[in-house]
Amino acid sequence: MLDLTPWIALFTGSASVSNLPLQMLIVFGLAKLCGEISERLRAPAIAGEIIAGMLIGPGLLNWIQPGELIHSLADLGVMFLLFRVGLEVRASELVRVGGVALLAAIGGVMLPFIAGYLIVSQLGHPQIEAIFVGAAMVATSVGITAQVLTQRGLLNHRASRIILVAAVIDDVLGLLILAVVSSLAKGGIDFLQLSLTAALAIGFVLLIVFWGVGTATRFLPWVKGHLRIAEADFVLALVLLFGLSVMAVYAGVAAIVGAFLAGMTLGESADKRVHELTSGAAELLVPFFLVNIGLQLDPKVFLDPVALVPALAIFVAAVLSKFFGSGLGAWRLGRRDAVKVGIGMIPRGEVGMVVAQIGLSFGVIPQPIYAAVVFMSVMTTVVAPPLLKWAYRETPLRD
Amino acid sequence: MLDLTPWIALFTGSASVSNLPLQMLIVFGLAKLCGEISERLRAPAIAGEIIAGMLIGPGLLNWIQPGELIHSLADLGVMFLLFRVGLEVRASELVRVGGVALLAAIGGVMLPFIAGYLIVSQLGHPQIEAIFVGAAMVATSVGITAQVLTQRGLLNHRASRIILVAAVIDDVLGLLILAVVSSLAKGGIDFLQLSLTAALAIGFVLLIVFWGVGTATRFLPWVKGHLRIAEADFVLALVLLFGLSVMAVYAGVAAIVGAFLAGMTLGESADKRVHELTSGAAELLVPFFLVNIGLQLDPKVFLDPVALVPALAIFVAAVLSKFFGSGLGAWRLGRRDAVKVGIGMIPRGEVGMVVAQIGLSFGVIPQPIYAAVVFMSVMTTVVAPPLLKWAYRETPLRD
Repeated sequence: MLDLTPWIALFTGSASVSNLPLQMLIVFGLAKLCGEISERLRAPAIAGEIIAGMLIGPGLLNWIQPGELIHSLADLGVMFLLFRVGLEVRASELVRVGGVALLAAIGGVMLPFIAGYLIVSQLGHPQIEAIFVGAAMVATSVGITAQVLTQRGLLNHRASRIILVAAVIDDVLGLLILAVVSSLAKGGIDFLQLSLTAALAIGFVLLIVFWGVGTATRFLPWVKGHLRIAEADFVLALVLLFGLSVMAVYAGVAAIVGAFLAGMTLGESADKRVHELTSGAAELLVPFFLVNIGLQLDPKVFLDPVALVPALAIFVAAVLSKFFGSGLGAWRLGRRDAVKVGIGMIPRGEVGMVVAQIGLSFGVIPQPIYAAVVFMSVMTTVVAPPLLKWAYRETPLRD
Repeated sequence: MLDLTPWIALFTGSASVSNLPLQMLIVFGLAKLCGEISERLRAPAIAGEIIAGMLIGPGLLNWIQPGELIHSLADLGVMFLLFRVGLEVRASELVRVGGVALLAAIGGVMLPFIAGYLIVSQLGHPQIEAIFVGAAMVATSVGITAQVLTQRGLLNHRASRIILVAAVIDDVLGLLILAVVSSLAKGGIDFLQLSLTAALAIGFVLLIVFWGVGTATRFLPWVKGHLRIAEADFVLALVLLFGLSVMAVYAGVAAIVGAFLAGMTLGESADKRVHELTSGAAELLVPFFLVNIGLQLDPKVFLDPVALVPALAIFVAAVLSKFFGSGLGAWRLGRRDAVKVGIGMIPRGEVGMVVAQIGLSFGVIPQPIYAAVVFMSVMTTVVAPPLLKWAYRETPLRD
């Protein structure tokens, strides 16, 4: 429809003309247009940006297809998003809320797993399918909530800190559940390997939090003092961001956990310039993360009752089970903050879809159930921002 | 060598684990490391970043292979580089140096074409090969020079402005020469189509410079006033950047010409925040542009006399012909500034390689000549920064 490449090839005699600028214009421009419309409908812009992905995806307009480039820009986007969040919070303050966050994470893992298992069992599917859907409903994708809280200047609210810490713990728990269900799909659980996986993931996070932050605060200024290249502060920050992301992947947790820890490591020493330059990269890349979520969902599912009913059931169960699971875990904070935590943990985003894809590749999840999990993953990211706005309605805004 | 992906796949049961953070770490980290070494050897960092590409490329360490992702990040990098340059200069001041720049561009197109044609003819190759190599030696890649001038705060020097304008004119002239030689390779020249190509490219540039800048200055503040999304200024800037890049591609010129014009269009109205956020995106992406140039060259060519001799001949001819061609065109400025212009136009970078690739795809350029053109393209980008530093040695620096 918008592909004029052959026309250009007429002049240059080459079919290899890149349509990169056009892809950038469509994704970035339409994301921001839908974000603007969303704001005018009194919903957060982020919901509109995800919906933009549904509109331009293969299901409807087919202007953009999920591919390596969009996917990589999306991954970079969520890494920069979490890096920026890490820059804004203090490790010492996060450690202090660790107890409540642990309860919120455990509650928010157990209830969704049980809910997913029961629903899919009740729909008459085999046990392994029910277990996989349960696992896919576990992992919170903290990027969506973090972006809403960042844009509204609410990152240092008590409930926000608990959401961030709970999301990191949730990622480790999700890794372990995924390891267990993957083993089940392959035949049996290897408890030695499972213990190693757990030790590596937990060890990595604790090592960075309790040793890395202090070391970096002493060590980085010394390195900076010896560098002659331009923007040395930002260069070091990016090397730390990519370095800890790589280590996180090798430790078994998500790259964004490494990105978050990298931001937190720098938080105490980063100057204003590093914050500004990070914002520039994040503003460019985050829309790709949001659009890429929307791209996964074919909006035609809304018109097909046979697909829609189980998808809606799984979606509603995912919202309620995470809300009550994490909310009850954080009950100690009082009702209002517990509600904030419960809602902040709702988005599943890319994490749920990855689990479902693994199930699909093992042949233990059929296509319709996979589609229902994708529906749940995407729609939880769409409903969370307006709910969060409501939950934080009485909290003073920065802007 | 560094690929631990299978090891991760052990845990997750999936082979689709992305090694994106690792690619980012290797490219960005080693580019900056080589940049730092380069600075300590009293050469500009940019030369080291290009050499980093040669080191990690398939010819030597084989850590990174040229592919869609690196190529796209590189293209984005040079777009942001030129956008940032455009933000720093004023259209009105560039129009004033148009006359000298036109002469510098014409001189810098004619001499390299003749030099390339003569050398390849003298080496005993057929006429069509000689014409293609001549065409590949024409187009200046202004990104390298622009980055050096930006980093040293020299963009608003008189010679710098002439280099920027001459590079835009050079791009249009290069497009026309490419259209002519492509037609020759396909059988004959269609003068009507050639005129249309010329009219479209020249019309686009003139339209933006003489009408777009003024219109945007009046129109954009009005749009901004009506937007409710966060960072609306930067969002509009990026939409303009991608939009004009798309239009540039459809008008037949390089996307970076559109990016440069977009920056210039905003220059008058962009506030400090837009400059800062643009710098953030540029600092992240520009190293990919530089590394991607280096990736194209296999450093083993330096050890092979049979390949090295013709490559060196073409390289030396490319440097001298552009230096004297553009330098004599700018002679009116006096010797010192003419030398700056002549040196600033030397880098060929990705543009020369694209022409050579087209020749290769038409079967009119054999592989050894293609390799020699790649050598010339990459090495002109490596030698230009130190020469530029020398040429501007008496000019007061900002930092």
